[in-house]
Amino acid sequence: MSQIAETVAAIAAQSLTAQSLIEQARERARRASDLNPIAHADWDAALAEARARDAQAKAGARLGPLHGVPVSIKDLFNVRGMPTQGGTRAPLHELSDAEAGLVTRLREAGAVIFAKTNMHEIALGATGENRWTGDVKNPFDPARQAGGSSSGAGVSVATGIGLAGIGSDTGGSVRIPAAFCGVAGFKPTFGAIPLDGALYLSWTCDHAGPLARSVDDCARLFEVMARRSVAHGAVARKPRFAVPADWLRGRLQPAVREHFERACASLRAAGAEIVDVATPLLPTATDCYTPIVRAEAAWVHRRALEAGGEGFSELVLPPLEAGRKLSALDYIDAMKRRDRIRAELDAIATGCDAMLMPSSGALPPLRGQADVEVEGGRISVREAVLGQTLPFSMCGLPALSIPAGLVADGYGAGTPPLPAGLQLVGRFDGDASLLALGRWVEGLVGSAPMPAGF
Amino acid sequence: MSQIAETVAAIAAQSLTAQSLIEQARERARRASDLNPIAHADWDAALAEARARDAQAKAGARLGPLHGVPVSIKDLFNVRGMPTQGGTRAPLHELSDAEAGLVTRLREAGAVIFAKTNMHEIALGATGENRWTGDVKNPFDPARQAGGSSSGAGVSVATGIGLAGIGSDTGGSVRIPAAFCGVAGFKPTFGAIPLDGALYLSWTCDHAGPLARSVDDCARLFEVMARRSVAHGAVARKPRFAVPADWLRGRLQPAVREHFERACASLRAAGAEIVDVATPLLPTATDCYTPIVRAEAAWVHRRALEAGGEGFSELVLPPLEAGRKLSALDYIDAMKRRDRIRAELDAIATGCDAMLMPSSGALPPLRGQADVEVEGGRISVREAVLGQTLPFSMCGLPALSIPAGLVADGYGAGTPPLPAGLQLVGRFDGDASLLALGRWVEGLVGSAPMPAGF
Repeated sequence: MSQIAETVAAIAAQSLTAQSLIEQARERARRASDLNPIAHADWDAALAEARARDAQAKAGARLGPLHGVPVSIKDLFNVRGMPTQGGTRAPLHELSDAEAGLVTRLREAGAVIFAKTNMHEIALGATGENRWTGDVKNPFDPARQAGGSSSGAGVSVATGIGLAGIGSDTGGSVRIPAAFCGVAGFKPTFGAIPLDGALYLSWTCDHAGPLARSVDDCARLFEVMARRSVAHGAVARKPRFAVPADWLRGRLQPAVREHFERACASLRAAGAEIVDVATPLLPTATDCYTPIVRAEAAWVHRRALEAGGEGFSELVLPPLEAGRKLSALDYIDAMKRRDRIRAELDAIATGCDAMLMPSSGALPPLRGQADVEVEGGRISVREAVLGQTLPFSMCGLPALSIPAGLVADGYGAGTPPLPAGLQLVGRFDGDASLLALGRWVEGLVGSAPMPAGF
Repeated sequence: MSQIAETVAAIAAQSLTAQSLIEQARERARRASDLNPIAHADWDAALAEARARDAQAKAGARLGPLHGVPVSIKDLFNVRGMPTQGGTRAPLHELSDAEAGLVTRLREAGAVIFAKTNMHEIALGATGENRWTGDVKNPFDPARQAGGSSSGAGVSVATGIGLAGIGSDTGGSVRIPAAFCGVAGFKPTFGAIPLDGALYLSWTCDHAGPLARSVDDCARLFEVMARRSVAHGAVARKPRFAVPADWLRGRLQPAVREHFERACASLRAAGAEIVDVATPLLPTATDCYTPIVRAEAAWVHRRALEAGGEGFSELVLPPLEAGRKLSALDYIDAMKRRDRIRAELDAIATGCDAMLMPSSGALPPLRGQADVEVEGGRISVREAVLGQTLPFSMCGLPALSIPAGLVADGYGAGTPPLPAGLQLVGRFDGDASLLALGRWVEGLVGSAPMPAGF
């Protein structure tokens, strides 16, 4: 199941070299360059580092759990020897100088950090469109969104540029590109992975998390970044899933609904119990999330905004300006309403093994598309996509997007088959059991599809 | 040392009755009525409850640690069968209906809750002046402030109306009336005592805490309200105190400085080590505290403010309106600056047994007095008094005001002798050791003076 574990074992056995993995990543990055996933790469340095890993393997040294594994980093984490741009041209006054702690942990575990990946500007958006770096494009249909804000991470993993990418998730920015690009993405419990050396978007919602080709690979990256142990065995008993059915009603594209019901049938056939659960406060989550993130983002970028906002594109300047104008009372009110939503979700999480739902209400929309037709009518792409993931970021619960194959004809006959993800949401600090459950689900509903040409 | 422990033992031995303590409290409340400490009392109910306590003692029942001890409650905690006014005529929309958990805990430990005490309106102020209930007056000079916001608690304990009063402390509201009225007041670590059933002022700064005639009595009340055990033995070794000397420079009245230096000399003579400590961020504490408390208070009272603010006096309406107008960025900025002050204080707290300073930079000012002459010139009463206590509330550290006798001629020849307090500040969650240290200091610097006529 774990490509990472197999890779490390092969490098240790000298049947595979870390150098060849970087050469392969470079070749694939060349082939995927139109999709625009890479912000910065230093292939010579990466090759030198990979050769050093191979020499260690040859010397019989004790190898870390990620020895020789090529990992890319979203361009909002500091990486020694590489610039951090955060997808913007605005100055990043709040960013520290030191390498992000999670990058150092990956390196110490043997990973070869070979590139920084493109992202939605300052991580404030989920489409992957970017006026400065150019859009990041979906590998299954370049006319479509790659998802964001960890857009380049999703595309890199989907096209085999390295085995994993590290993203950040404030409202869904790991899970959305994972779902749109057909890979696995894991947003751990709030605080589980340190965020020093990262460009914050909204420090009460920000998380770091891995994207990889399987849940088990995500688990191995999480273990290193969070310095925790996660059992890699099987789920011991038949799980119980809670579906927020009332909340989902009207929010899904018909093709997403149909795909989700087929997935539920597979899980039921394997013995899972799936029950509906009421979530009366969940529909208020977006109205609560928006002021929190805008105010905190405006604080992070206050100096650049005070200086006139130069370097922010029109995709992010209006929400930043809205955040600047927000009153303390509206911000506090949103924090208080979040406390109540969190209590609702915590109560649900203790009554089941995980919540279960589609990772996105819509399949990847076209780039530039503003709204989308779902069962209940036309709604904004933001609500159809981000609305499905943001409650769990802002409440700090661990959440996983599992690649669940391709859906044909999602936007009518003739659309190419597009990836769909299944989202599992666990209880606070229940990362290990959520990952175990995720592996079980992944074994039943499919695995990461490979886009044509890779 | 502990009047509470002796009282409970005497009630258990039937050499004293709880009934006689309530009768004494009623008589003293009558005598102190001009000082205006009591918001609400039901003497008949209290007498009935006291008689029931006496019957339990007679029956040889197992008695709680506060059995028969008369305790008053600040009028912002809900008490079964008594109204909660919070010192205002504005409606209290955020107040719950249930009795405050800490009151129930006191009751379960055997305390007789006999009255609610007057306070600064909505706890937003430290002078005890109140347009609706009338001012609470200092028992050592009725022309002077009793301190606040737990004004009635300070006066009640000082004049023997019950053995203890429970107050709340957001910026100093337990320690200031304790210091001004010559009793002990303890503000525990943030979160140690639950605040359900209380009218919040500023939930990131609010604490409940006891006022009593000695540190040990405070410790016994803390044990019950926080459900923790505190050793009542002696301090094992000679303590090390840190004095924020640079910060204190210019902030103290000459008489307060002289009194403090005498106290330091007594502690040194008993073996204490007293060192100066630099606190470069401490002078910024008031500028950081003010927006946090105003914004949070404006949120708590938002519905009454939206309805026009009727029922708030001119003593609190301007800061509430300022809080309403504050931007989210200014609020966030204050929270971020607080984090840095907290880090500074935490670092100091780990390098010594406690910080040591006067509880107030000024002796009790006249009611209506707006500013006061200190070493550095004329400063506001708010900064001279509240400025000395608020850093430790807003940063959540435990802090204790110890009664340290009377100071003559503080405001020039002919002023009556006025109480002064010594403040000890401990490390986060170091409540037990701070209380032990407080008992040691109290044994050296004096005890609670009794005002004339009581």
